[in-house]
Amino acid sequence: MNSEVQQKAFGKYATLAALLGQKAALELMPEHEEFKVVTGKVGSMDLKKVISSVETAAKRNELINPDIYRETHALYHAIIEAAEGVTRGKLSVGEVMRTVGLSFAAVRGYPYKDPNEGEWIAVCFYGTIGAPIKGKEHETLGLGINHI
Amino acid sequence: MNSEVQQKAFGKYATLAALLGQKAALELMPEHEEFKVVTGKVGSMDLKKVISSVETAAKRNELINPDIYRETHALYHAIIEAAEGVTRGKLSVGEVMRTVGLSFAAVRGYPYKDPNEGEWIAVCFYGTIGAPIKGKEHETLGLGINHI
Amino acid sequence: MNSEVQQKAFGKYATLAALLGQKAALELMPEHEEFKVVTGKVGSMDLKKVISSVETAAKRNELINPDIYRETHALYHAIIEAAEGVTRGKLSVGEVMRTVGLSFAAVRGYPYKDPNEGEWIAVCFYGTIGAPIKGKEHETLGLGINHI
Amino acid sequence: MNSEVQQKAFGKYATLAALLGQKAALELMPEHEEFKVVTGKVGSMDLKKVISSVETAAKRNELINPDIYRETHALYHAIIEAAEGVTRGKLSVGEVMRTVGLSFAAVRGYPYKDPNEGEWIAVCFYGTIGAPIKGKEHETLGLGINHI
Amino acid sequence: MNSEVQQKAFGKYATLAALLGQKAALELMPEHEEFKVVTGKVGSMDLKKVISSVETAAKRNELINPDIYRETHALYHAIIEAAEGVTRGKLSVGEVMRTVGLSFAAVRGYPYKDPNEGEWIAVCFYGTIGAPIKGKEHETLGLGINHI
Amino acid sequence: MNSEVQQKAFGKYATLAALLGQKAALELMPEHEEFKVVTGKVGSMDLKKVISSVETAAKRNELINPDIYRETHALYHAIIEAAEGVTRGKLSVGEVMRTVGLSFAAVRGYPYKDPNEGEWIAVCFYGTIGAPIKGKEHETLGLGINHI
Repeated sequence: MNSEVQQKAFGKYATLAALLGQKAALELMPEHEEFKVVTGKVGSMDLKKVISSVETAAKRNELINPDIYRETHALYHAIIEAAEGVTRGKLSVGEVMRTVGLSFAAVRGYPYKDPNEGEWIAVCFYGTIGAPIKGKEHETLGLGINHI
Repeated sequence: MNSEVQQKAFGKYATLAALLGQKAALELMPEHEEFKVVTGKVGSMDLKKVISSVETAAKRNELINPDIYRETHALYHAIIEAAEGVTRGKLSVGEVMRTVGLSFAAVRGYPYKDPNEGEWIAVCFYGTIGAPIKGKEHETLGLGINHI
Repeated sequence: MNSEVQQKAFGKYATLAALLGQKAALELMPEHEEFKVVTGKVGSMDLKKVISSVETAAKRNELINPDIYRETHALYHAIIEAAEGVTRGKLSVGEVMRTVGLSFAAVRGYPYKDPNEGEWIAVCFYGTIGAPIKGKEHETLGLGINHI
Repeated sequence: MNSEVQQKAFGKYATLAALLGQKAALELMPEHEEFKVVTGKVGSMDLKKVISSVETAAKRNELINPDIYRETHALYHAIIEAAEGVTRGKLSVGEVMRTVGLSFAAVRGYPYKDPNEGEWIAVCFYGTIGAPIKGKEHETLGLGINHI
Repeated sequence: MNSEVQQKAFGKYATLAALLGQKAALELMPEHEEFKVVTGKVGSMDLKKVISSVETAAKRNELINPDIYRETHALYHAIIEAAEGVTRGKLSVGEVMRTVGLSFAAVRGYPYKDPNEGEWIAVCFYGTIGAPIKGKEHETLGLGINHI
Repeated sequence: MNSEVQQKAFGKYATLAALLGQKAALELMPEHEEFKVVTGKVGSMDLKKVISSVETAAKRNELINPDIYRETHALYHAIIEAAEGVTRGKLSVGEVMRTVGLSFAAVRGYPYKDPNEGEWIAVCFYGTIGAPIKGKEHETLGLGINHI
């Protein structure tokens, strides 16, 4: 990232956590230790279930405060942006005869030096998308980032 | 990826190459050595220029044969799918007052065990998207995969 | 509207009817008295139900003639355009874990001075969109206009 | 809005300001006096110019702090959501032979009772869209809302 | 078409005219003689130019009355729907490094038995889309239909 | 098509097969005899069923090899591109209260002179789209093309 001096690449950190696991991500980017990370897995033909899996994991692990709507709103839009990458601009899974098997990572913290920039959230999905038949699938990826 | 036994995760390999560079990607995934990789950088408000940068790099480095349209066609759709992730379903950059600064990796090879599956191509973009003012930007990512 | 001399702002009238009710709209824009107005409410996670609520209200109140397909066709496209505003370009509600609670107004009449321009229809939705939890939502709005 | 007890309808307020002007909006919704409002006009075939007109007005009138990226980011996404309504899901103007003439209102404040919900921003466009010939146009509207 | 008894397949007629020329279309579907047809060709990287070529041909050949906005509006939406087929949901040509070479046919008349259904318009594009290099392209097609 | 000397218009051939039937298509374009064609019909409010009807017909008639994922992948994307034309960029049927009644043709072969270009697939849908009421519908069309 060509502005690494000004901000921490917490989206890269979320992506490495989704690709390689949280521990490997931290080894590669130890300076991101202060960011809070939640990871999980979800497989479905139902985009609703993909969205709610991340929301549930984020609430259960206190990545976001479920009582504050602005936190839910920030997370929701980050999830949807990541899902645009996974579905490559179609935002449909089962409706167009596809199924997904995804790992996800959600990361929260202060990526910018200036404390006025506040907290941001990154959501990354990585896994497979394809026909609902084992092996008839290829990889897919998506990243969403939002201020919280 | 939940079918790693059946296929090589060459999309993950492309993503690590875009995020960390080709050398680091190979260290993390040495079993992908036989895949051909091309990397590059492009910064622009013009999506056309982003697309043509990958195409030019792929042709110049013989990742694809420029005389065969099916190879151009396969690469083009992989680029567009990756761009859907970067722009999160809008496929516009300058038209909506955004600029991107991206690293890219394009990877070609045989990800499936069955040789009848033939060659596939993966394109990954990683970098920043935002207002055309230094620092007013956040990270972005996209991955496209196609048979060649 | 910068061509108010040439046409009546019946889309504004539909919007005020959705926002404030039909009576308040007429008080603010009494010169639109000759336009026919139908209003209603619908809450759902199912976009189909949102569409059919407006269609049913329009047919039951004789805003359109249900036996003439061109009237159904004109209304349908006005509803879909209004729904694009409500969903901000995604045309999905429940599939992406959202629910809507909407007031709507459909208005029919002659907005242009030239009688050859014939009748037009405007559909406006106003209400809330958000997570399927009370209070975890914000406002949303959409307007569609078509010749009939 | 069916949750008016829990939140102020500042999106409705922004819409009335775009439709009727800031003074008329305040007369209709006096309880929104504490919200900060910026209004303006823009006519163009270029969506970039529409976006930058709102950004410039918001910065010049101190609706947002131009030095904090999260404020620019929140405003940008609210503008884009409003533009989705105006263009009804296509996010293009001149590229598809259309021109727009728009009034806009941007509103900032605390719509939710709970102070932890913090500040939010609403952007509304109202005006005309059509062929680049006077009179060959109809009304259009869009509303975007984001936490800031 | 499974309702051919109730309506004339004037969209099929427009498609045959774009594929084979107006004369061949009429030979295959002589019962459509009363429909008015305009055909033309356009090659461009600029979607605006594609749209305006059809509009100009339709006005010059009196398929629509240029002084009545509802006719321009009906034609415009039929063109855009046909362009969605050509670009397969992206509504961009040059912006995503593609060029098109298209034949088009626009057809106007009464497809439904019931005279209250009035006049409708069909627009069909057929040709090639691809890289801006001769031969690096494949066929493309789109059909839009609207009441007038 | 302005490059007919360089390639066979097998997309036109698929379209004529969907519009007029396979026999009539072959009479009009006898030089396409070597292409393999599969035709069928499907009516549904469910896009999944439309997609799977073409996939099932293509597998049952050995147009594609069901054991090779690249063939399924090539066909799937051709179907989705054709469905973008049918739904005009929305990729939804029942979710937006529409139903379709479609004929389809899928064609496979070598359209380019250069044998290195290999095999390609074309999928065309033609039929009606509209309200789920007999007669409240108009024609629709879509064509997708992919290398296999």
